[in-house]
Amino acid sequence: MTLAAAGSEIERLIALLARLPGLGPRSARRAALTLVKKRETLLLPLAAAMAEVGERVTVCSVCGNVDTTDPCTVCVDASRDPSVIIVVEDVADLWALERASVMRARYHVLGGTISALDGTGPEDIGIGRLVERALDPAVREVVLAMNATVEGQTTAHYITERLEPLAVTVSRLASGVPIGGELDYLDEGTLAAALNQRRPFR
Amino acid sequence: MTLAAAGSEIERLIALLARLPGLGPRSARRAALTLVKKRETLLLPLAAAMAEVGERVTVCSVCGNVDTTDPCTVCVDASRDPSVIIVVEDVADLWALERASVMRARYHVLGGTISALDGTGPEDIGIGRLVERALDPAVREVVLAMNATVEGQTTAHYITERLEPLAVTVSRLASGVPIGGELDYLDEGTLAAALNQRRPFR
Ligand SMILES: [Zn+2]
Ligand SMILES: [Zn+2]
Repeated sequence: MTLAAAGSEIERLIALLARLPGLGPRSARRAALTLVKKRETLLLPLAAAMAEVGERVTVCSVCGNVDTTDPCTVCVDASRDPSVIIVVEDVADLWALERASVMRARYHVLGGTISALDGTGPEDIGIGRLVERALDPAVREVVLAMNATVEGQTTAHYITERLEPLAVTVSRLASGVPIGGELDYLDEGTLAAALNQRRPFR
Repeated sequence: MTLAAAGSEIERLIALLARLPGLGPRSARRAALTLVKKRETLLLPLAAAMAEVGERVTVCSVCGNVDTTDPCTVCVDASRDPSVIIVVEDVADLWALERASVMRARYHVLGGTISALDGTGPEDIGIGRLVERALDPAVREVVLAMNATVEGQTTAHYITERLEPLAVTVSRLASGVPIGGELDYLDEGTLAAALNQRRPFR
């Protein structure tokens, strides 16, 4: 869409906003207009927050979480149980589990799943690093908190095989997670129940 | 929501994103994560675009459009018919009519409607400035392109009364606009038809 009446700067802002998940072209226009109208209270603070996140936020070299420190706040938190690693596909899943706040453990963010279709192999999603972490004698349990999708469960099975020789218990979320569902869509209560009822992988 | 695992910078970004129309808390988290992952291609360009819009975009002192120049691109566009002013409630409606691109005229953005409930009077929405503009002998027609809502039509009636003593034709959009509907939700074809079939106000 060419929007000569709005000036190329606003057009560019709309085009970039439309690339955010959840915003289509129309809602991107609404958002841009809201930003222009709320220059002091929303536009400038948001621009500053983005610049700051862009400058300061990094990926944790231990677990794959995003934070302003490396290792991240979760990894260096001494009050967390060092014997449990919860494996998730995505940072959004880590956030979802933290909101459920039922286990004070550490995480391992895969950043994807094994997928023959996409050509994503075990090493593309940091399973090697997970095995290394699980070799630490302090680690006694690895909780597989994958999505209940074909790819998620394929990945969970593969990880279980890789961890079989190790002295760790591999568990998975209870079947409270709906078949085909994605973790990040679930309410805190369901996630808490699924974590509390976790059981050995097989 | 406290999200200690994400760092206060990302939490602040999520809180600001959630204030955009169309984004709830969950989609704001998704958007923040997308931004972090697409630092170079989305986060930094968006931060820059916002800063630039914040620095350069201003409200046109003639018509109320937003642009980087004052008067705006539309107001100084010599190729537009200087005899017609299209009155709209909001800049989003101006954009919608420009997309329909059926009339090359100028606009007057009210920035609201007369509303006894909200205590918004005629002078709060720049009707005085519209009357002044309509006094220009070059102006021969004022097209009222209000939303087909009670407030929009109340405002249209009031403007018609104010313009009655003047030597201008007051017209309104054809009844192609659905009752209770809002301009910015309509497709280009419907808007084009409504503009082409405009008729005298009463
Ligand atoms: Zn970490
Ligand atoms: Zn203007």
